[in-house]
Amino acid sequence: MFRKLVTLEDAKKIIDENFKPIVIGDEDVALLEAYSRVLKDDIVSSIDVPSFDRSTVDGYAVKAEDTFEADENQSVSLNISGVVFAGEQPKMVLGKGEAVEIATGAPLPEGANAVVMVEDVERLDNQLQVYTAVTPYLNVMKKGSDIKCGKTVLHARQVLGASEIGVLAALGLTKTRCFKPPMVAVISIGDEVVAPGKLLSAGKIFDINTYSLSTAIMECGAKPVFFGLVSDDKAALSKTLETALTCADVVITSGGVSVGSHDYTPQIVDSLGKPGVVISGIAVKPGKPTTVAFAQDKPIFSLPGNPAAALLIFYLLVRPIIQRLCCRDPSEMRTIRAFAGAKLFSAKGRRTFIMVKLVLDIEKCRLVAEPVVGTSGAITLLSETDGFIEIIENQQYINKDEEVLVKLFKPI
Amino acid sequence: MFRKLVTLEDAKKIIDENFKPIVIGDEDVALLEAYSRVLKDDIVSSIDVPSFDRSTVDGYAVKAEDTFEADENQSVSLNISGVVFAGEQPKMVLGKGEAVEIATGAPLPEGANAVVMVEDVERLDNQLQVYTAVTPYLNVMKKGSDIKCGKTVLHARQVLGASEIGVLAALGLTKTRCFKPPMVAVISIGDEVVAPGKLLSAGKIFDINTYSLSTAIMECGAKPVFFGLVSDDKAALSKTLETALTCADVVITSGGVSVGSHDYTPQIVDSLGKPGVVISGIAVKPGKPTTVAFAQDKPIFSLPGNPAAALLIFYLLVRPIIQRLCCRDPSEMRTIRAFAGAKLFSAKGRRTFIMVKLVLDIEKCRLVAEPVVGTSGAITLLSETDGFIEIIENQQYINKDEEVLVKLFKPI
Repeated sequence: MFRKLVTLEDAKKIIDENFKPIVIGDEDVALLEAYSRVLKDDIVSSIDVPSFDRSTVDGYAVKAEDTFEADENQSVSLNISGVVFAGEQPKMVLGKGEAVEIATGAPLPEGANAVVMVEDVERLDNQLQVYTAVTPYLNVMKKGSDIKCGKTVLHARQVLGASEIGVLAALGLTKTRCFKPPMVAVISIGDEVVAPGKLLSAGKIFDINTYSLSTAIMECGAKPVFFGLVSDDKAALSKTLETALTCADVVITSGGVSVGSHDYTPQIVDSLGKPGVVISGIAVKPGKPTTVAFAQDKPIFSLPGNPAAALLIFYLLVRPIIQRLCCRDPSEMRTIRAFAGAKLFSAKGRRTFIMVKLVLDIEKCRLVAEPVVGTSGAITLLSETDGFIEIIENQQYINKDEEVLVKLFKPI
Repeated sequence: MFRKLVTLEDAKKIIDENFKPIVIGDEDVALLEAYSRVLKDDIVSSIDVPSFDRSTVDGYAVKAEDTFEADENQSVSLNISGVVFAGEQPKMVLGKGEAVEIATGAPLPEGANAVVMVEDVERLDNQLQVYTAVTPYLNVMKKGSDIKCGKTVLHARQVLGASEIGVLAALGLTKTRCFKPPMVAVISIGDEVVAPGKLLSAGKIFDINTYSLSTAIMECGAKPVFFGLVSDDKAALSKTLETALTCADVVITSGGVSVGSHDYTPQIVDSLGKPGVVISGIAVKPGKPTTVAFAQDKPIFSLPGNPAAALLIFYLLVRPIIQRLCCRDPSEMRTIRAFAGAKLFSAKGRRTFIMVKLVLDIEKCRLVAEPVVGTSGAITLLSETDGFIEIIENQQYINKDEEVLVKLFKPI
C-alpha cells in the first residue's frame, strides 16, 4: 500500500470519503469574547426592538393630523403639555392640539404618532408654532421596527463579527452558544530537530514546523496543542501519536516521512486503527511524501519535514478539514491574475507549485509573478512568497509573460 | 464652533492634522502567542540556516566528480564507507571512490559534495553501483542557503503570520519584540441605555454599541476597554471621560451627541484639554452628529447613538487611526462592482451612505446591490448588510441598474 502516489484531486477525494465532519461540542461564550466564533443555533428574538415607539430626533411629539395645515408661511399653533427625556416612561396622554417636547431616543407619549424636528418649530413659553406638516410616524422608529419579537435575527453557523455581536446585545443577551474549536495536535519528528532556545549542536536544525503550523491552525479558528518534538524512535513516536489521537480531533506530524530506514511514521500511523493510511505519497512538488491516515474517525496528516512543503500541503489539504470541524465554510484561497516573470518548469508527472512574489511592473502597469528562488526546504522561501502558481501534471512549462493565476497565501 | 458641518474629506484632513501617531510601547511575545502581532524591529539572523551542508534526500553522499561517467547503461562503482543519520555529526572523511549512506536532513561528511538518490543506485553489501551522474551540490542544501548569517529576514512593522513565525523559529528564537496594542476606551452614553442581561424597563433599550464597537476594535488588533454606561449626567460623564483619557490611547463614546438639552458630550469633551473639539458634525448620512476632539494628544471620537451610524463612522474615520496606533497600515475597505438594485436617493447636501446587500442575479450573471431597508437606528440593518454605496454631495441619485462600487464591511 505504501508509496503509491495519487494525484492531488484524488487525495482530496480520498480524504473526503474518509472524513466524518463531527461536531466537537458547544459552549457559552461571553459577547465580548465571541469575536470570530461560530454560532451554534439560530437566534430568535424574544423581544421587540425597540420595545416602544421611539423618537429619532430632538423635537416635539404631536398628532400628525394636527400639522397637516402647516407650512413655511403658515404655522400651526399647539399647546406644549410636557416633556419626555430618553429613558423615561411618559406619564401624559397627548390630546388634540397638544405637543410634548421629546428628546432623541425617548418614547412617544400615548396619543402622539409623529415628531416635528426642533428645527421646524418656534417656541414661546408653552406655545409652539409648527412650520411643517409631518406624516404619521415621521421621525419615529416604531416598536419592533428594528427587530420583531419572534424574528430569526442570526443563523446557526454564522461567524460572529461586530454587527452580529451588536445584534445579540440588542436582544439583551450577555452570552451566546458557540461551537467549540477543534483541538489539533502538532508533533515534530526527527533526530535532527531541536527546540528553539536550545543549544544548536552540530548536524541539528531548529524546529520550525511546530511554530508555522500552529500559527496556521490558529488562523483557521482551531486550537493547536503541541505534543512535542519526537526523535526517530519507534516506541516514543508510537506513544506520542496514541496520546495525541486520544486527546485531539486532528493530528498533524511533520518530518519522518522520507523513505529512509529511520522514518517510521507511515508504519506507525497505519497501526493506530482502521482504516489506517489512505494516502501515502501525492504526485505534487513540493510535498510528495505526504501521508494521510484515519483512525478512530480522526484524520492524521503526516507532512514532509521541509517547512515550505509542510505549510503548502497544510493550506491545500489540511485547512479545509479543520475549517469544517470548526463548522465554518472551507475558505477558497484568494487568487489574482498576473504575468509569469520567468519561464517556469514543472516536475515530470507531478502537479508543481511554484512559489512566487508579486511585483508591480510600472511601465506595463501589470502584476508580475516572480518565482522565489530557493531549495524546497527553505523557510525564507515562504516569508518572501505572496502565493503560488500551479502547473498541472501534463503541462511541461509556463512561458515568460504568460498570464497566470496566483493563489495567495494572504490577502494583499 | 459647535454644529458647523464639515465634509467627510475635510473631517479626515482635520483628524490627520491633529493626530500624533505615537508608539504605544513594546513587549516580548512568545512565538506561539505572536500570531497577528506587529514586529517592532528588523530581525537579523545571527546564524546560518542550515548551519551545515544538508542532504535533501535519502541516498548516498559522494564526490560529484566520481559520478560523471555514470548513466543508465553504465554504472560507476563506489565503496560504501559508512552511514550518516539525520541529527548526527559525521565522523568520517569521504575519500575518492567512496560513498556514504545518508538520510534526508543529515549533514554531508567532509569530502562529499553531492548526494545520489537511493532510486538511482544499486547496493550489494558495501559496493554501490551509481546509475546517474550528479552535479556538485545536487540534492544538497548548502550551509546558509536558506538564511545567511547577517541577513535581514523580517522587517520592523511586519504583521506576523505562519511563515514569519516559522522564520523566527528557524533562528532559534522563542520570543520576539512586538508593539503593544493601543487601549481604546469605550463609553456608552444615555439615560435610556441598559446593559444586556439587566431588566429592560419601559422606555429603555439595551446597550448595543459597547459590543459592536468593542468587537470592531478587536478586529483592528487593539484592546477595547469598557469604561461603562453613563447616564446623561454632566458630572458623571465628565469624570468617566477624564479617567478614560488618562488610561486609554483613544476614547470612543456613543450617544449623547444630539442637539437635545441633555446631550452634554460635545461640551464636556471640549473641556478636557487643547485643542478640544475639532469637528462637530459631518455632512454625511447617517452619522451627522459625529464629534471629534483631541486632548492630551489623544483622539476622542463621539459617535452617534444609533448602532448602524456608529459602526459606519467607526469604519470610515476611527479604524484608520487605531490601525496606525497599532503600527499597521490603515486598511482600505475592499470594494466590489455591482449594479444598483433600485433607484437610490441622496440626502440633500450630505454624503450619503446606502447600506446594501449583494445578491447574485443568475439570469444576467451579475451582482446586484439591493438597498437594505430600515431606519437608520436599526441594528438588523447592519447584520443584513454586506457593505455600502456612497453617493457624493452634489449627486442627487443613482439610477436602478447603474454600475456602482460597493465598499464591503467584510471580505466575501
